[in-house]
Amino acid sequence: MNTTQTQLGQVLAAGGPRLSRLLERTEARLAEIANSHGPELSRHSGGTLSAGGKRLRPLLVFLCADGDADAALRAAVAVELLHMATLVHDDVLDRAALRRGRPTVFADGGRGAATATGDLLFSRAFAELSQAGSADAVRALSAASSALAGGELMQRADAWSGEVTPERYLERCRLKTASLFEAACRLGALLGDRPALASALGSFGGCVGVAFQILDDVLDVSGPAERTGKPRGADLLDGTVTLPLILARERDEGLRRLDLREAVTEPAQAEAVCERIALTGVLEEARAEALNYVAQAKAALADLDLPEQRREALDLVADGVVERYA
Amino acid sequence: MNTTQTQLGQVLAAGGPRLSRLLERTEARLAEIANSHGPELSRHSGGTLSAGGKRLRPLLVFLCADGDADAALRAAVAVELLHMATLVHDDVLDRAALRRGRPTVFADGGRGAATATGDLLFSRAFAELSQAGSADAVRALSAASSALAGGELMQRADAWSGEVTPERYLERCRLKTASLFEAACRLGALLGDRPALASALGSFGGCVGVAFQILDDVLDVSGPAERTGKPRGADLLDGTVTLPLILARERDEGLRRLDLREAVTEPAQAEAVCERIALTGVLEEARAEALNYVAQAKAALADLDLPEQRREALDLVADGVVERYA
Repeated sequence: MNTTQTQLGQVLAAGGPRLSRLLERTEARLAEIANSHGPELSRHSGGTLSAGGKRLRPLLVFLCADGDADAALRAAVAVELLHMATLVHDDVLDRAALRRGRPTVFADGGRGAATATGDLLFSRAFAELSQAGSADAVRALSAASSALAGGELMQRADAWSGEVTPERYLERCRLKTASLFEAACRLGALLGDRPALASALGSFGGCVGVAFQILDDVLDVSGPAERTGKPRGADLLDGTVTLPLILARERDEGLRRLDLREAVTEPAQAEAVCERIALTGVLEEARAEALNYVAQAKAALADLDLPEQRREALDLVADGVVERYA
Repeated sequence: MNTTQTQLGQVLAAGGPRLSRLLERTEARLAEIANSHGPELSRHSGGTLSAGGKRLRPLLVFLCADGDADAALRAAVAVELLHMATLVHDDVLDRAALRRGRPTVFADGGRGAATATGDLLFSRAFAELSQAGSADAVRALSAASSALAGGELMQRADAWSGEVTPERYLERCRLKTASLFEAACRLGALLGDRPALASALGSFGGCVGVAFQILDDVLDVSGPAERTGKPRGADLLDGTVTLPLILARERDEGLRRLDLREAVTEPAQAEAVCERIALTGVLEEARAEALNYVAQAKAALADLDLPEQRREALDLVADGVVERYA
């Protein structure tokens, strides 16, 4: 059992039977949606939806919600559907064959089916949330959804660029990852009878999301592949400029001069550049930046009127995102 | 000036200055959205959004709405954004270089930028509609959005199939095209102070949408390319099985036996098969089916409490979709 699983166990213990029950209902509802749109969707997105994952975003919804479980459930299902939609589209763009050990929708059904399946999952996210009857909630989800797509556009515009500053990188993390973490927490608060805490809990989620993305980018460089489930340097191969690379370029002139688009086209080359980045010592610096965001996240909770057990569970989630594979 | 333009002129005349003003505000808002998401979106979707088109769906929103112009405007912008999102994604799948005489987002920015731009337009559609503050309206748009994607999946599953019945074809038209026409009318009624008419006006829109799609499919076979702006037989080339082909296969055994995936891979071959379909006389039959839906659409308006001028304008739109290029 790895660190994440241990920590998730602690969160579930802190959340009690309420949390486990809500997560089970989330799975059941996701399966129901996958099976309610004809054989094509059920084949394609059934695989995606049931392939699992950590269900981190639904977890955040429930930890930020009090009260009406049905409305929070709608929100949890909606954020997970939106997350899935972006994964399905990402797999088309990356021509990915596998995700979490299962064939992607792209591999199984081709570009057309995968693009349409992603669009359908997007649509179902809004359909699900609209059942909760809150215009504020729909606004929060659509803001996150716009940010995700905007971040994806930014990432593609910045591909292979030598001009990406740490600030621009962090802005991309906010758009591409943190926006949905923020929305998960905000929706939990809005629909779970804590509307006054929506803004503070949203900030908590946003900081956790940035930390999560920074650590993902560190793991892409550090590996090991057996733990992360993907080869080292995948970001280098598709031109995604991340914090470790940006920082390493400041320290290593050879790296700064390297044209990655030319020099890194094979996994072995990517692995060698990962080694070189790691040697500059920037991985610790990037990890420290992630920890910084975790501290900010926890600080956002400090003065809130939350039950102690709930605060502990949220703290555990925040710690968990940077302690993955530690 | 072609028939559509003449008829649109008549609709605008029937709609008076209110309608022209609302359509102008729609254009202005679409341009504003395109310019408010950073340089990438403004470059990519600015082209798409300002490339025009008939704005038929916003027109339907306004013709079905009375009262609050601001809420109707949100709905009109939302349906057009959703329509644009599907066009941008369709162009990725079809690897289309041009749309309405301008480079597609796909041609300009590549697959990644176009997929993300489509996702952003989807998101903005829901963001825009959520400002109107009606959960019923969001439900109507998300139902349409799910149907559009479901129809796209169905079309891809049925590609090159010899088993598509007219009923299945019509179901696909309802999903892929009519659902957004229906939503446009329903949203106009819901947000424009005619909620009691939402269902009837939705039915009107749905029938107009089916007629629109049938005629589109007739035009793909009949051409002429100079009028439709695209080469004859594009549907045959990408395997889309439409009503003219289904009906022609019932009459012409040679066509029934033809394996289109093998036999139609070049535009000249597609044109020859179009000629052969036309010779069976099914284009008139398909056009009659479209007229049938137009009659149903008008019948749905018959007993409604609508101002006479408004009913005339809606009738003109219904007639217009089958009189294109007549």
